[in-house]
Amino acid sequence: MKKKVLLTPGPTPVPERALTRMAMPALHHRHSEFKKVLGEVREGLKYIFQTKGEVIIFASSGTGAMEAAVTNTLCKGDSVLVVQGGKFGERWGQICKAYGVVADILEVEWGKAVKVAEVAAKLKEKPYKALLVQATETSTAVRHPVKELAELVKGTDTLYIVDGVTGVGVFPLPFDELGIDVLVTGSQKALMLPPGLAFAALSEKAWKACDKSDLPKYYFNFKKELKNLGNNETAYTPAVSLLVGLHEVIKMYKEETLEKVFAENAKMAEACRAALVALGLKLFAPESPSEACTAAWTPANVDGAEVVKRIRDVYGYAIAGGQDQVKGKIIRIAHMGYISRYDLVACIAALEQTLNDLGFKVEPGKGVGAATAVLGK
Amino acid sequence: MKKKVLLTPGPTPVPERALTRMAMPALHHRHSEFKKVLGEVREGLKYIFQTKGEVIIFASSGTGAMEAAVTNTLCKGDSVLVVQGGKFGERWGQICKAYGVVADILEVEWGKAVKVAEVAAKLKEKPYKALLVQATETSTAVRHPVKELAELVKGTDTLYIVDGVTGVGVFPLPFDELGIDVLVTGSQKALMLPPGLAFAALSEKAWKACDKSDLPKYYFNFKKELKNLGNNETAYTPAVSLLVGLHEVIKMYKEETLEKVFAENAKMAEACRAALVALGLKLFAPESPSEACTAAWTPANVDGAEVVKRIRDVYGYAIAGGQDQVKGKIIRIAHMGYISRYDLVACIAALEQTLNDLGFKVEPGKGVGAATAVLGK
Repeated sequence: MKKKVLLTPGPTPVPERALTRMAMPALHHRHSEFKKVLGEVREGLKYIFQTKGEVIIFASSGTGAMEAAVTNTLCKGDSVLVVQGGKFGERWGQICKAYGVVADILEVEWGKAVKVAEVAAKLKEKPYKALLVQATETSTAVRHPVKELAELVKGTDTLYIVDGVTGVGVFPLPFDELGIDVLVTGSQKALMLPPGLAFAALSEKAWKACDKSDLPKYYFNFKKELKNLGNNETAYTPAVSLLVGLHEVIKMYKEETLEKVFAENAKMAEACRAALVALGLKLFAPESPSEACTAAWTPANVDGAEVVKRIRDVYGYAIAGGQDQVKGKIIRIAHMGYISRYDLVACIAALEQTLNDLGFKVEPGKGVGAATAVLGK
Repeated sequence: MKKKVLLTPGPTPVPERALTRMAMPALHHRHSEFKKVLGEVREGLKYIFQTKGEVIIFASSGTGAMEAAVTNTLCKGDSVLVVQGGKFGERWGQICKAYGVVADILEVEWGKAVKVAEVAAKLKEKPYKALLVQATETSTAVRHPVKELAELVKGTDTLYIVDGVTGVGVFPLPFDELGIDVLVTGSQKALMLPPGLAFAALSEKAWKACDKSDLPKYYFNFKKELKNLGNNETAYTPAVSLLVGLHEVIKMYKEETLEKVFAENAKMAEACRAALVALGLKLFAPESPSEACTAAWTPANVDGAEVVKRIRDVYGYAIAGGQDQVKGKIIRIAHMGYISRYDLVACIAALEQTLNDLGFKVEPGKGVGAATAVLGK
């Protein structure tokens, strides 16, 4: 009977306004009512991506847009450089491999951001066709230096392809200004919707690469979607209800403004870090933390999986654990989208109780106090 | 302010029960609450597909599952036979072409079903790797002889791949019994949900073909999804809210039983045909009409597009027009999913009024009476 609250780095909670809109009777995707919605969604996506260009929409999870970024801009046998510092970096490499694109992997220690100088050195070794990276590597809660990397490829023939699934709408990634070539995201993170929509913005350079790409594709076809969007349609039946929800979310972003959303996320991230440190936990990515979510090592002798299970099952707060090499060793708390600052504070209180339950003694209120001190500044 | 009712052959209306479930706070796709839902959805899909095997689920529109059917079971350079009697038959050919599969096109006049003898003759010419067809060619409202075609390929090496987007849940397509190898569908037709989910059932023969397939794929990967489903997960973030809606729809199917749903759809299709004929319209597919939707030629001197526009804008009933070669020449009325027999009757009444408005004089109640006479039998 007790309320459950999601502070997971995707999916994030869906605002009641969006849930209610999505519960309205279905619209037909070829009718004017829906076309009007899609037209406004197109404009809204430009606002959120900070671009003048069209943002492509797929009915799929974010991985679909990642695949499209590869198969629409590259050719068989192309060499690309992939920054791999976690699960999602690995995904770039897997997608390239599946389509016969040669991916050189720049391995980055989990919990660290890629060093700009290392990328620069690699880019000098070979004329890479593309550089692929994550804005936030969600599995480690690390923010990679997207802006600095952009400088490296600016004016070259290398395409700069960024997975912004846990980035767009979280912190500034001004597409046109930074000079990113393809930026993708999904619906279930900062866009506060259920999963099932994927998006991609493309630069002029990326659109030219689409003309030359020889990799096979059908459903995930940027050019076909671009053509259809001009008529407020999609090439295949769109995920109508999720787009109606997005229409509402975009209104919320415009009412709040991107600037305020970014500032609030940054503040909450700072508060979360302060709380975890005050509780005696060690941050997993202290040097380059993301504003989307924060990761910390669980204390020695405390199983991270137990923390995640207990705080959810007993106290109703869903946070995430670690994956693969850090499974059971870290916890991850999200603070983006429709997670409020006092959702975060309450979650920290529940974490304090959970740690005490599991034998790691913390002073009740210590983490909460550290968080609220930051939030009150 | 007036109510709008969808009688379009996709999307179809979403039951209030499903809308309400989908408006509940988001579940996390790795949590036990959702895994329980997915486990029951898996069982329910087996019931609806009438198979003992696993039904694969993608977050995409139906076209995604069509693409997967090709890229997961075939090899580059394979020759396949495609039945093409409308827009969706064309899609099979386009997908094959995009991936280097050689598609021989068996053209069928729009409004006609493919002749079994013609397919038999073609299959004797070449050892085709696959036969691809639609259960209902939605663009013409024709039902192809799926069962009879199954007999042709049974015991051969040819894979039988059926687009059941407008078929599964509409009329009997018992997967295991018929010997179909891949049967795909989407969420927005008989499954009464918003678009955004695609499904595919596979035979043992199809799974073996997956082991040999060399076409590139990443997001649409049957084997990867099969492995994950065993743990009540999907390879990539699933469309959680739509799957929760499907959970409710499956309950409705089980309460009603497939047999009753099929019988009701057949009855409504018969009633719709009787009504259109009584109004003096000529059926577009009289010999092999689908139970999903009915198409009729609009009268000479009446623009089909005007009929569709007026009945929707003035009277609130959304039906479909024709596409491509029959654009403006036919109307299509759906009677599947959450469209009730008296939704259909009301739509016929609105059609009578619309035809009168546009100068084609019909006696008010004549179509309605013909429909209710059939329904009352």
